[in-house]
Amino acid sequence: MRVRAEEADELIRRALEEDGAFYDLTSTLFIPEDWKARGAVVSKSRACLAGLSVAARVFWHLDPEVEVAFLRRDGDLAGPGERVLEVRGRARALLAGERVALNFLQRMSGVATLTRRFVEILETLPRPPVLLDTRKTTPGWRGLERYAVRVGGGANHRWSLSGGILLKDNHLFLLRRHGVSLAEAVRRARGLLPPGLRIQVEVKTLAEVEEALAAGAEALLLDNMSPEMLREAVRLVGGRVPTEASGGVRLENLREVAETGVDYISAGVLTHGAPAVDMSLELES
Amino acid sequence: MRVRAEEADELIRRALEEDGAFYDLTSTLFIPEDWKARGAVVSKSRACLAGLSVAARVFWHLDPEVEVAFLRRDGDLAGPGERVLEVRGRARALLAGERVALNFLQRMSGVATLTRRFVEILETLPRPPVLLDTRKTTPGWRGLERYAVRVGGGANHRWSLSGGILLKDNHLFLLRRHGVSLAEAVRRARGLLPPGLRIQVEVKTLAEVEEALAAGAEALLLDNMSPEMLREAVRLVGGRVPTEASGGVRLENLREVAETGVDYISAGVLTHGAPAVDMSLELES
Amino acid sequence: MRVRAEEADELIRRALEEDGAFYDLTSTLFIPEDWKARGAVVSKSRACLAGLSVAARVFWHLDPEVEVAFLRRDGDLAGPGERVLEVRGRARALLAGERVALNFLQRMSGVATLTRRFVEILETLPRPPVLLDTRKTTPGWRGLERYAVRVGGGANHRWSLSGGILLKDNHLFLLRRHGVSLAEAVRRARGLLPPGLRIQVEVKTLAEVEEALAAGAEALLLDNMSPEMLREAVRLVGGRVPTEASGGVRLENLREVAETGVDYISAGVLTHGAPAVDMSLELES
Amino acid sequence: MRVRAEEADELIRRALEEDGAFYDLTSTLFIPEDWKARGAVVSKSRACLAGLSVAARVFWHLDPEVEVAFLRRDGDLAGPGERVLEVRGRARALLAGERVALNFLQRMSGVATLTRRFVEILETLPRPPVLLDTRKTTPGWRGLERYAVRVGGGANHRWSLSGGILLKDNHLFLLRRHGVSLAEAVRRARGLLPPGLRIQVEVKTLAEVEEALAAGAEALLLDNMSPEMLREAVRLVGGRVPTEASGGVRLENLREVAETGVDYISAGVLTHGAPAVDMSLELES
Amino acid sequence: MRVRAEEADELIRRALEEDGAFYDLTSTLFIPEDWKARGAVVSKSRACLAGLSVAARVFWHLDPEVEVAFLRRDGDLAGPGERVLEVRGRARALLAGERVALNFLQRMSGVATLTRRFVEILETLPRPPVLLDTRKTTPGWRGLERYAVRVGGGANHRWSLSGGILLKDNHLFLLRRHGVSLAEAVRRARGLLPPGLRIQVEVKTLAEVEEALAAGAEALLLDNMSPEMLREAVRLVGGRVPTEASGGVRLENLREVAETGVDYISAGVLTHGAPAVDMSLELES
Amino acid sequence: MRVRAEEADELIRRALEEDGAFYDLTSTLFIPEDWKARGAVVSKSRACLAGLSVAARVFWHLDPEVEVAFLRRDGDLAGPGERVLEVRGRARALLAGERVALNFLQRMSGVATLTRRFVEILETLPRPPVLLDTRKTTPGWRGLERYAVRVGGGANHRWSLSGGILLKDNHLFLLRRHGVSLAEAVRRARGLLPPGLRIQVEVKTLAEVEEALAAGAEALLLDNMSPEMLREAVRLVGGRVPTEASGGVRLENLREVAETGVDYISAGVLTHGAPAVDMSLELES
Repeated sequence: MRVRAEEADELIRRALEEDGAFYDLTSTLFIPEDWKARGAVVSKSRACLAGLSVAARVFWHLDPEVEVAFLRRDGDLAGPGERVLEVRGRARALLAGERVALNFLQRMSGVATLTRRFVEILETLPRPPVLLDTRKTTPGWRGLERYAVRVGGGANHRWSLSGGILLKDNHLFLLRRHGVSLAEAVRRARGLLPPGLRIQVEVKTLAEVEEALAAGAEALLLDNMSPEMLREAVRLVGGRVPTEASGGVRLENLREVAETGVDYISAGVLTHGAPAVDMSLELES
Repeated sequence: MRVRAEEADELIRRALEEDGAFYDLTSTLFIPEDWKARGAVVSKSRACLAGLSVAARVFWHLDPEVEVAFLRRDGDLAGPGERVLEVRGRARALLAGERVALNFLQRMSGVATLTRRFVEILETLPRPPVLLDTRKTTPGWRGLERYAVRVGGGANHRWSLSGGILLKDNHLFLLRRHGVSLAEAVRRARGLLPPGLRIQVEVKTLAEVEEALAAGAEALLLDNMSPEMLREAVRLVGGRVPTEASGGVRLENLREVAETGVDYISAGVLTHGAPAVDMSLELES
Repeated sequence: MRVRAEEADELIRRALEEDGAFYDLTSTLFIPEDWKARGAVVSKSRACLAGLSVAARVFWHLDPEVEVAFLRRDGDLAGPGERVLEVRGRARALLAGERVALNFLQRMSGVATLTRRFVEILETLPRPPVLLDTRKTTPGWRGLERYAVRVGGGANHRWSLSGGILLKDNHLFLLRRHGVSLAEAVRRARGLLPPGLRIQVEVKTLAEVEEALAAGAEALLLDNMSPEMLREAVRLVGGRVPTEASGGVRLENLREVAETGVDYISAGVLTHGAPAVDMSLELES
Repeated sequence: MRVRAEEADELIRRALEEDGAFYDLTSTLFIPEDWKARGAVVSKSRACLAGLSVAARVFWHLDPEVEVAFLRRDGDLAGPGERVLEVRGRARALLAGERVALNFLQRMSGVATLTRRFVEILETLPRPPVLLDTRKTTPGWRGLERYAVRVGGGANHRWSLSGGILLKDNHLFLLRRHGVSLAEAVRRARGLLPPGLRIQVEVKTLAEVEEALAAGAEALLLDNMSPEMLREAVRLVGGRVPTEASGGVRLENLREVAETGVDYISAGVLTHGAPAVDMSLELES
Repeated sequence: MRVRAEEADELIRRALEEDGAFYDLTSTLFIPEDWKARGAVVSKSRACLAGLSVAARVFWHLDPEVEVAFLRRDGDLAGPGERVLEVRGRARALLAGERVALNFLQRMSGVATLTRRFVEILETLPRPPVLLDTRKTTPGWRGLERYAVRVGGGANHRWSLSGGILLKDNHLFLLRRHGVSLAEAVRRARGLLPPGLRIQVEVKTLAEVEEALAAGAEALLLDNMSPEMLREAVRLVGGRVPTEASGGVRLENLREVAETGVDYISAGVLTHGAPAVDMSLELES
Repeated sequence: MRVRAEEADELIRRALEEDGAFYDLTSTLFIPEDWKARGAVVSKSRACLAGLSVAARVFWHLDPEVEVAFLRRDGDLAGPGERVLEVRGRARALLAGERVALNFLQRMSGVATLTRRFVEILETLPRPPVLLDTRKTTPGWRGLERYAVRVGGGANHRWSLSGGILLKDNHLFLLRRHGVSLAEAVRRARGLLPPGLRIQVEVKTLAEVEEALAAGAEALLLDNMSPEMLREAVRLVGGRVPTEASGGVRLENLREVAETGVDYISAGVLTHGAPAVDMSLELES
């Protein structure tokens, strides 16, 4: 469950560049090159940690000799005031990398922390549905945010548009407008798809559930349905294909949605609505 | 007040790649290449818009012939349900770019909307301080988020570590630990700086305010002070150097901080705590 | 069914650079900058064309004013000696881009031509299986080679390792060595997968077919089986999950494999064993 | 005779990206992160090996701690079933890199193997001509393919358009059409060239041989001539300038061409017509 | 006072590529891969050294095992014939990197050497002004050239257009043409700037000095003034804001300008007019 | 005789980035986005122009709608005070691009101007040698500097280490140390080289001239010889192979070297010792 270094490194480099960290005027002028320092990243509130190794890599980009001690691991819960990462090395590198390292850690931990809260609710159910993220990720950050979702205990939805088939309302609108039946479209597509992909169809009403099943849909996305309608839809499907509830799922209504019997729940808020967790770097010597 | 295309384009390309938009399986299989479509981006709630041209560029990356009509401009307020952007072109390009375009627009508008709310409060004061953002931006997104801050009516803090001097607590800690007086440090640095930069020093107490002024500080960052202490600090400074209040500024306490007489207020929440504004793309023909 | 310009452009730039085309000594010294020329790309043998627009882009990289007339389209069959593309513009650009343009076109058309021959055989069957390519593509060329497969009438297998699940012999070896039953592994993975993906399992014997089905495999890859064993495996599966034949499929044995009743046939030779089709650029004025 | 790591690394990264190897769903879900494995790359048929270090680098990109033992070196002949490379490390890295590593090794070894067969024929002659490759290389792969040619015992033609002068039929056509004599063109170019480059001219007939020599050609490319004509051309040249035979040279006619007395033979088929050599990775523990 | 490796590495890679160093024909053909060598970089004349670590990195790009001994450090003065850097490793790597390594070292040392000569003159004054470089740097080389200026004892002007405010003649021309008073412009801008930046204004006459001060200028650039006028301007300003002399400052007139009492002197010639210092690599075994 | 846009664009982008031109604080704050302006690039002294189109591209990078009028062409001589390029467009783009555009133009024109002066001297001779540049170019700038050399009337030496063979003193030292005779080394290399390349050997004494000729050298580089020795060397060679004088050639001694009868003269000073030509951008409306 590693973060892909490749991706993190590119973003780290870009972030350090946009922050001018390779030529930090203040440190260059006030902190002699040979001063050493030691500091700790401290979590200001309860957090499910994610991105510790990304934060460490930020410092390594500025000075490969910075030593990092991981006091906690990704996925651990940290309490307020807890030291989670210790760094030692050239003071200039610590100072120049501080903000960028925290910016990564705060945001990734924010996503993991929110996901964890979702999972804690689902785990109280006898047969919990799988919790999925969505494609509503920060552009450039998909890998990091989805990693944080996994760290928090969730699962990832299709990785990208080339990683699965999902017929959404806009696709269905166009098929209708051009007089192509869903059944016909599904049949033709099946002949151009590898065996490992299921054709999933978005539906908004019970009538659409029946229509999609009849057309050969191999999985359903139940969009923006009320808990009642979800329960009825699950009954209609009767286990023939997997069902996923989506749309407006939040901490407040999660349990209610989960109890409808759907197999999957996806929530965009995990990545686009997770507040950053506050962290700071405190020099100690 | 344009977004730097350079930066947006790189992120757009990366975002489209990570979303697999250059090979959207669903569209490729279900939507023939020559189908055309028209759709509108609709704001789901009240929003100060930012990033409309970025959203447009997303579609142009997929098909340079997509036509875009800007129904609103960056900085405009859109009401719930309002159509803000119209796109026409190959249906495949609209479908493949939809999610990425919205991901940009939702986040940038989120920052602008929150900034606007801050500014609306400040504008009720007789002599409002300047509202500044911070360096707590999403790695890779600084240009876009700071643009959104300007669109919302705020000003940008130093652009990067190479764009200004700010002696923070960690710098001061190290100077102290090595027995270097602030006055001596400021004097030496002054001889290595161009005339256009002021040496700003972070202070947490009134004693530190006096010490910094005595040492030659050319601007002060008043960190995490209560409104009372801020008011006293402003009195002590007596207009000799500019003052900036920072730390924990939120919508709730903004007015109180502003009324202390500081010249500048900076708030990290503008970029790291702004919730995305909900938008959708609705095909209309 | 477009080629992704993004990807082609990167390769084109790289190819022009490695060929020194941006500073072609011979043209620079012998051909004055203002000489114009017209030429045609001619196919030397029967070919299913693929990559015409890539070849055109090569010239545009050297001179955006080169005019290109597409005499044929991707997917067309060209006979020996047939002119398929006409280019006019600065002679230097035509000369400097000639080799690179042909290198792209020859290889892509090679893949399309071989695929077409496969498809022509399959189309004689009453119920032809779907023809798939594999991941045995030239590094850096996956997009172009798979596009050529589609142009030739084939379908693409899972786009990448992040685009589907396939448990191969090496995975199964490891599970066995660690005492993890396939059934248990499938069960756990199912809870971490989105609904749109099927778990496909590679099997080499009829015993493995039964074991995989019992363990919950949602699709089978029948690896290196003889036609007889394939026929028996198809019978065993009885339509419960999709079946794919793979391993050593060539023009010579394609029909025999196809007649076993499998749903899919994948053939690595489509991309790694397709000989280039000979093409040349002939200046005509 | 190293491969340029720079070039290989860029292609490796691109190949791993296009194969989704940085997020291999199957391994992530089925193979725990701490499982280790050992495997060997096995050649399925007789091969002149090329690219072993490239294959090794593929695994290092995924996990720098993978240990590789080179059982054979580039240039060695491997028999069918022979183990040529041993890898140990995290099972996930071996599984995710397997296909890409083999894709490199199979293709490079394919080129080396074919080149070796050419060289074995030439070495039976008393005074063998130099065997050269051409610029008909896979875009993006020139460095790797030409390295494989050297490994197989061949020599490389001019590295790129900026690495030598060759007046081909299209250049000569344009000179003629603009009324510029070859002699005049050669004279002017000579004054703009460094001393280390010879002006080589392509000729198709004996009359053109004489014309080129009279015009000051410093080397000749004898294009698509029959063995008889080649023999006569060599006689005409009489050792005054080097001669190179080109066009349609294959294993079948190589000896015949070589016996005509030309100094060089170039063959495009070495790089664009070499079938991949079949290799596999077999986990052993 | 390190060079930013990031930037140097990108330029090094580019320089090695443009020099074809990754495939050095001569070394490949004449120097077997396993030959080792030792050599020294020798300065041909008196030089203030800058860029030793960049030169070392050039060799490391070609072979990470090259051993480098730094006989001198950046900022040291080397006499003619002095050995400043020793390298040992594969002979091919030393030969292929020689030219590029020297190209970096010669140019950076050229800038440092000229800067040092300026500083030596200034240091004879009782109260020397700060010596600044300008933005007249070689495109792509700003970081390296400005580092060399610091090594030679100078200071860097604003890092870039986003790192400071300077109203130059062209800005003032436009404000005038649109009827915007300088005072009004300064007032508005002040409300959009962070506290750490001073508004500097370029002036060419004594009248403009007074106008700028009245308008609120926070620093002055005294452009192309004679020593007499500079002296008068300094008197007029009376220490209210910092003053900088610029325009046509050379070794010959430096002392005269410095004696006028200005706080800063900037000189473009430091980066755009510094002759390269001659260096060579001599193999010794 | 175009500059390769590709290369210029990459450097331009990098230069604009390092100059912060995509976020020019001064222009953003003082110059409204809709102000237009017109200006001219003026040469401050006599110059052979090179790089006008590069300067123009700088502005296009900032605003594709800037209109440029080329009042002069590359290769023209401009007198002091002469307007050479006119630009119109958004004032912000002109201001933000000014410095970078001039930085390119000044340096490229510097190289062309010095080359032109060399050529003017050579052209007074009855049988002038070819003037060549060297590989002593600014890293990252080879294409631009060598283009400027051609514009000034010179020719380019081998393009890179992969574009020709030159055995220099360090190669010869190593061969000697390993007991490999030059004759043997040349013989073996010849069998691995394409016909279009000549083996050039560096010699420092008349004895070495004879040794190199005997060993089969196909061209000679006469290094650092006095005019007398050069004359004698030319006599010894007697036209058998081309001769090139190199080392310490400057304007002052150029004629003397040229009169020795060598075929080529190469001078590093053309690219590493050419002072920038002063240019400025003057807004006119």
